[in-house]
Amino acid sequence: MCAIFGIFGHKDAASLAYLGLYALQHRGEESAGIVVRNGRKARVHKGMGLVSDVFAQETLKGLHGELAIGHTRYSTTGSSSSKNIQPFLFDHKKSQIAIAHNGNIINALGLRNALEGKGSIFQTTMDTEVIAHLIAGSEDGDFRANIIGSLSQVQGAYSLVMMFNDVLVGARDPYGFRPLCLGKLNDAYILAGETCALDLIGARYVRDIEPGEVVFIHKNGLEAVKPFPRAGHRMCIFEYIYFARPDSNIFGRNVYLTRKELGRHLARESPLDCDLVMPVPDSGNSAAIGFAQESDIPLEYGLIRNHYVGRTFIQPTQSIRDFRVKVKLNPIRDVLRGKRIVVIEDSIVRGTTSRIRVKTLRAVGVKQVHMRVSCPPLRFPCYFGIDFPTQKELIAARHSVRRISDFLGVDSLEYLSRDEMLNSMPLPKDEFCTACFDGNYVMCPNKKICKGILE
Amino acid sequence: MCAIFGIFGHKDAASLAYLGLYALQHRGEESAGIVVRNGRKARVHKGMGLVSDVFAQETLKGLHGELAIGHTRYSTTGSSSSKNIQPFLFDHKKSQIAIAHNGNIINALGLRNALEGKGSIFQTTMDTEVIAHLIAGSEDGDFRANIIGSLSQVQGAYSLVMMFNDVLVGARDPYGFRPLCLGKLNDAYILAGETCALDLIGARYVRDIEPGEVVFIHKNGLEAVKPFPRAGHRMCIFEYIYFARPDSNIFGRNVYLTRKELGRHLARESPLDCDLVMPVPDSGNSAAIGFAQESDIPLEYGLIRNHYVGRTFIQPTQSIRDFRVKVKLNPIRDVLRGKRIVVIEDSIVRGTTSRIRVKTLRAVGVKQVHMRVSCPPLRFPCYFGIDFPTQKELIAARHSVRRISDFLGVDSLEYLSRDEMLNSMPLPKDEFCTACFDGNYVMCPNKKICKGILE
Amino acid sequence: MCAIFGIFGHKDAASLAYLGLYALQHRGEESAGIVVRNGRKARVHKGMGLVSDVFAQETLKGLHGELAIGHTRYSTTGSSSSKNIQPFLFDHKKSQIAIAHNGNIINALGLRNALEGKGSIFQTTMDTEVIAHLIAGSEDGDFRANIIGSLSQVQGAYSLVMMFNDVLVGARDPYGFRPLCLGKLNDAYILAGETCALDLIGARYVRDIEPGEVVFIHKNGLEAVKPFPRAGHRMCIFEYIYFARPDSNIFGRNVYLTRKELGRHLARESPLDCDLVMPVPDSGNSAAIGFAQESDIPLEYGLIRNHYVGRTFIQPTQSIRDFRVKVKLNPIRDVLRGKRIVVIEDSIVRGTTSRIRVKTLRAVGVKQVHMRVSCPPLRFPCYFGIDFPTQKELIAARHSVRRISDFLGVDSLEYLSRDEMLNSMPLPKDEFCTACFDGNYVMCPNKKICKGILE
Amino acid sequence: MCAIFGIFGHKDAASLAYLGLYALQHRGEESAGIVVRNGRKARVHKGMGLVSDVFAQETLKGLHGELAIGHTRYSTTGSSSSKNIQPFLFDHKKSQIAIAHNGNIINALGLRNALEGKGSIFQTTMDTEVIAHLIAGSEDGDFRANIIGSLSQVQGAYSLVMMFNDVLVGARDPYGFRPLCLGKLNDAYILAGETCALDLIGARYVRDIEPGEVVFIHKNGLEAVKPFPRAGHRMCIFEYIYFARPDSNIFGRNVYLTRKELGRHLARESPLDCDLVMPVPDSGNSAAIGFAQESDIPLEYGLIRNHYVGRTFIQPTQSIRDFRVKVKLNPIRDVLRGKRIVVIEDSIVRGTTSRIRVKTLRAVGVKQVHMRVSCPPLRFPCYFGIDFPTQKELIAARHSVRRISDFLGVDSLEYLSRDEMLNSMPLPKDEFCTACFDGNYVMCPNKKICKGILE
Repeated sequence: MCAIFGIFGHKDAASLAYLGLYALQHRGEESAGIVVRNGRKARVHKGMGLVSDVFAQETLKGLHGELAIGHTRYSTTGSSSSKNIQPFLFDHKKSQIAIAHNGNIINALGLRNALEGKGSIFQTTMDTEVIAHLIAGSEDGDFRANIIGSLSQVQGAYSLVMMFNDVLVGARDPYGFRPLCLGKLNDAYILAGETCALDLIGARYVRDIEPGEVVFIHKNGLEAVKPFPRAGHRMCIFEYIYFARPDSNIFGRNVYLTRKELGRHLARESPLDCDLVMPVPDSGNSAAIGFAQESDIPLEYGLIRNHYVGRTFIQPTQSIRDFRVKVKLNPIRDVLRGKRIVVIEDSIVRGTTSRIRVKTLRAVGVKQVHMRVSCPPLRFPCYFGIDFPTQKELIAARHSVRRISDFLGVDSLEYLSRDEMLNSMPLPKDEFCTACFDGNYVMCPNKKICKGILE
Repeated sequence: MCAIFGIFGHKDAASLAYLGLYALQHRGEESAGIVVRNGRKARVHKGMGLVSDVFAQETLKGLHGELAIGHTRYSTTGSSSSKNIQPFLFDHKKSQIAIAHNGNIINALGLRNALEGKGSIFQTTMDTEVIAHLIAGSEDGDFRANIIGSLSQVQGAYSLVMMFNDVLVGARDPYGFRPLCLGKLNDAYILAGETCALDLIGARYVRDIEPGEVVFIHKNGLEAVKPFPRAGHRMCIFEYIYFARPDSNIFGRNVYLTRKELGRHLARESPLDCDLVMPVPDSGNSAAIGFAQESDIPLEYGLIRNHYVGRTFIQPTQSIRDFRVKVKLNPIRDVLRGKRIVVIEDSIVRGTTSRIRVKTLRAVGVKQVHMRVSCPPLRFPCYFGIDFPTQKELIAARHSVRRISDFLGVDSLEYLSRDEMLNSMPLPKDEFCTACFDGNYVMCPNKKICKGILE
Repeated sequence: MCAIFGIFGHKDAASLAYLGLYALQHRGEESAGIVVRNGRKARVHKGMGLVSDVFAQETLKGLHGELAIGHTRYSTTGSSSSKNIQPFLFDHKKSQIAIAHNGNIINALGLRNALEGKGSIFQTTMDTEVIAHLIAGSEDGDFRANIIGSLSQVQGAYSLVMMFNDVLVGARDPYGFRPLCLGKLNDAYILAGETCALDLIGARYVRDIEPGEVVFIHKNGLEAVKPFPRAGHRMCIFEYIYFARPDSNIFGRNVYLTRKELGRHLARESPLDCDLVMPVPDSGNSAAIGFAQESDIPLEYGLIRNHYVGRTFIQPTQSIRDFRVKVKLNPIRDVLRGKRIVVIEDSIVRGTTSRIRVKTLRAVGVKQVHMRVSCPPLRFPCYFGIDFPTQKELIAARHSVRRISDFLGVDSLEYLSRDEMLNSMPLPKDEFCTACFDGNYVMCPNKKICKGILE
Repeated sequence: MCAIFGIFGHKDAASLAYLGLYALQHRGEESAGIVVRNGRKARVHKGMGLVSDVFAQETLKGLHGELAIGHTRYSTTGSSSSKNIQPFLFDHKKSQIAIAHNGNIINALGLRNALEGKGSIFQTTMDTEVIAHLIAGSEDGDFRANIIGSLSQVQGAYSLVMMFNDVLVGARDPYGFRPLCLGKLNDAYILAGETCALDLIGARYVRDIEPGEVVFIHKNGLEAVKPFPRAGHRMCIFEYIYFARPDSNIFGRNVYLTRKELGRHLARESPLDCDLVMPVPDSGNSAAIGFAQESDIPLEYGLIRNHYVGRTFIQPTQSIRDFRVKVKLNPIRDVLRGKRIVVIEDSIVRGTTSRIRVKTLRAVGVKQVHMRVSCPPLRFPCYFGIDFPTQKELIAARHSVRRISDFLGVDSLEYLSRDEMLNSMPLPKDEFCTACFDGNYVMCPNKKICKGILE
């Protein structure tokens, strides 16, 4: 999962890209970078770490130009290394090209082998570099045709923001796995992974870039084409469940309201008698509100979040364990003691964190812990850009709900069913990819081929 | 406002102090330090910045010893400078003494002048250093008597944690302005500013250190004395309203539940007809729950917090203003558009942030913005440890509620009354200091003397 | 000018490469890097700055393996940028290849255009990358043939150290512009730019890599081939005059003794009556000894070097100029006052530094300043790896010796003649490139083509 | 041994202090600091490391004011810790006082105990802080009288530069152990440890501050007093032998010329038949010139210094030893092989470095190594500011010259005699302290009291 952002036609392009990435930081904490074009020259600044660590005031001041693209990375393919930081910028035959990519290209290895066979040298282990080489290897001709031709060789999930000299390019794969939206700030055009990036810079949401659409933005305006064969949409349902920010609209609809619906359906599907509803903050907040409103059980904040918990917390001693979990959320004894509570989780991946949390709730004297999860069990890996652990580590891939319930130590555990999940969605059911729940992959049914791409 | 923490009798003393300070980080973000004693040698590590920035894994590993005290600072007196970082450690006549202080000593300047007259050299501009010099200047004799004798010359607010060679000392001024509690972790004793620090390290809350109490903790156990003339308590009510963490118990009671009561009384005192209740997260969350439950207006999260906002956010351009406010909280258009909403604030200091926030709410199409504040107007400076801006900058010190309402641009504004605030408290009314609301200072009625202490 | 170093067959390969680069630091202060191969995996560490700044103890500890190559850079082509730091490492068709280059490839731009035309993407602006792409673009086959075939397309000066999987490769262009020697340390083979690198690690000098020779060093020993058409040698005479360390042997002979000979010939060619001979330390030391011995004028240290002068000296104020020169060398008034002195310079480039120095000598009361230079006037740019300023900035390219003498403010100025310079050399006269003195370039007579290579 | 510098009356005071310290860097590499006074406010910047590391361009720009004092430290008393960095700056009764000290106060411990008994808190472990407390403890009155009264209680070696509000103060103990000179740059006054600091900033040498003299420099000019009882001078002879820079004049005479005299006397006292004279650069250079001129044996540079060797060199592996010595100086085989050589050392402390060096000379085939040392054997510790190792570690304190010769592995070893050392000096014999050679201490004959001062 990654953040992407592009802007054309604003004198503070790099600064607005910085703000856009800041708003999209949740989509990737590993590295950040911005390429900005000034006159005929492109400059890049990138580094490992959060946007706020990578960019200092001085750095931003030095990044002049009206066209910028930015990226934050949450590694999917390619090892975690400084050479893999995006955007990927290169000079080629007097052109300057930069690419920022969100998604995962499933035929990257095969394409790379073919390109190396013709003498290309790869600098990174990222699937994204393959796109760069395809473009570089195109016959001379119209760059639009070269880009479209290159993308037509690529299979998988991609939302892309590119700079080709003084043109800003946006593209979304025909299945539309990942979101990408278009905004305007006065005369400037913006491309962003989620609408919260538009909100922060005060830009107006115009529309989504559609699945299979490629846009070229330049001084004469925006050209949009849909050059690829049409495909049924497969938008990632997990963006609604967990990944996107609640204040964003993705695929055209608000995330918070969708999550509240998940909570309402969950309350209807698995009702129970309890003293209070409690979210696991902050990811469970929206569904918990929906659950509380539907069930009429009072909502309480029984777990308090420590706002200072970031990447730098040190587990200071092995003799006293579990600090990393405990330091994030502290239960309030006086609220919870002797109560029957429903804990709302957005999803369960490995189950280890939830298990420790249940223990801390028991320790303050909770009488009954019931857990309700606002999506079905996660059973299959994602080949389209979400960095789940391997299938072996997904607790629901190997264990029944009963066994998971025992492992977590709860009094009851219920997941939202696949049907009710889809009923909670603001879009038609068949437009979503739900492969992580049901294994129904639109591409690459042979999982052996899909796995372990590039390294 | 500062965090203080002390521990005696645990082999991981420095690491537990680190965790304790981590839990208390909200009480001071400017600097952090830990003194640890190993055998006959004390070591200190301190620096400007957050606990997690100041202490690296390697640093903690090097801090051996079973007695440690720690501090984080949120400057009250003394300029913001690296020489003022606490704990204040010094060698004196073969003794090693370290002090960590939360509060404010109002006769510090007079004491300092007298001590300099006798030849003492001051290294810092902190009021805390005065205590050190008083102890150093004591006649030879029992150190307990010296400490008590020194504290009896000091006027103002103090919760103290000290190391005197191999003894851990805790003290709270006779008025009990600031909280200080005692915990145990197996055989180890702990002193902490709030109970959330005990929770994180898995320690058991034993009791509060009482106003006017001094405790000496050493290898034979704990000695407690109350050597000072008795005074009526003046516990800081603002700790309940804003400063303490909701998961802490202070002055013996839970903060979250107290804030919910403030919200309930607010709903009763200033009822209104609206579509939804919305907290300003996270400080307004607890009161908003109380308000929603009492008023039966549905609670919604209309403002979403960006979790990455820390100290390092850069306002990248002057041409586009107000980012620092906007980046923290983003309103959700689809939730708020066309609605009549009640916004719950814990308190209003300058009003400037609230004003920008109201603007962003109007911008997404809110129909009516009503603001309810869970305490009375802040009108007077604090001389007892809270770092309010100068009285001139407190909006309520100079303007009527009507004028504030206009300034904020809300449809209505109501504060909780002083009486109802006190009615919401879990302790008798006359045990609180409410001077910031009513100017009723227990010490130092002549504000000219009080002001501008030390620099 | 750059430092190169390679080692095969020693368990401390990276540490010895570090030491080798340390000894060769004078050949390039801008950046440093080491690639080390461990099993089937190569690791690189590189950075801007001195070897001692780029490599920390921890870094070296982490660089395991028995084959390493290293480089320090003193930019000749390619802008001064972190992307241009060598060695250049890349993965290609399951092979790992790394290159460290000293010299300058004069047909780099043409080769690059051709390679880009076939779809190659360049990551740097260095001529060295061209070699990498030539190798990558070779047909499958024996890597030895591919390397030789690639080098045969390259024109210019190169001494190269390469890693091709588990083989260490060394190469020197047919003209032999730059030095490269072979050493052994027990069973390990070493390639180094100068012998002082062998001395530091205690290795034995075996022989020079000959002009036009390519060596492949692997677990079965060393294979040497001379695959290129034979050419007359053109070894850089300026290495003897200035660049190499006096304790090194290059082109098979000692540098210090050669410089003493230059000084002796200078004394014979331009004798004079004076009170003392004084070198400009340390570059003039060797020639000054020769001059003093030949002329029987006593040697004195009249200029004292400040050992702390490095890259980080700050010129603190514009109102007081010339500190950067003065801080390096301070004249001793009591030694120089009232004396007639001969100052020995190794060479004069721009003349600005010498001029300031003469001023400081006058200021302490020197009676007569005579300058003797141990080489002829520098009049032409170097296209073979020495980073002289542009021809316009070479003082002797635009002014007569008479005018230079006036500019410097000396009582007399004499350069060593071209003939006597060659007579001082330990090798036949026709084996040297003296183009910087006489413009006699073996390649690229059309200077317009030569200039401004790549950027 | 430390560097001290003071300047009054120049608008670039801090920048000139920076340059002065840069010139005096050899007197202390551990830490550096500058205090500058601007209007009524003094600012300090200090840190561990070299002057060039501690001060960045930005830092200097921020240090405005016309009065500055600076210090670099080479720890003598007080542990190596950031709290001990000088100048020591403190506020006291509305005065701002700063002290920079070179020397060693032998009654510091007793004074400190007495001051602590009266309630003073010490912040450092430096003897210098004692002077600060003595001044602070003075009765109110004229600050000149207070400073003189405080210094009259102090025993030992001190050259001091102080700031007392807007007055620059200089002082030198009655024995005159350490140098201190006065210069002028236009209207500005300068105090510096050695004259090379005056040279760098272009200041004129006026005179030495005399033993027992105190000077007060202020807007009305310079007042000089000699308030202490007269004592016979005891100027440190080791400053001439090793410590001062050759381009400095100390105690009124040039160091280089004095060292040449030491070399001449050495050649006369211990003549021998050899092929060449070789200094250990750079500390042996001056004496070697004198030796060569007197003996008529040719001087050669057989050991070449690596200019990049600083504090940061890493000994990368334990399996290959002695790099720290070898990396500094590399012998030239072609110069030394088969030769009988005289090596000139300024002094021998532990002997371990010399021993390794002799080994490296043998390894390149030197036929005979004779060592001549330009001072007598070092047998006694220094209590007056030079940081020799403990007496046990001084090789000559425990071994005969014969045994040392064997240990070093030389063919012959001769030291200059005490008489000839004194005959080489430019000042009367009885004005020097020679205690490190003969144990003849002017103060503190009971070494037990002297030793281990403060810690």
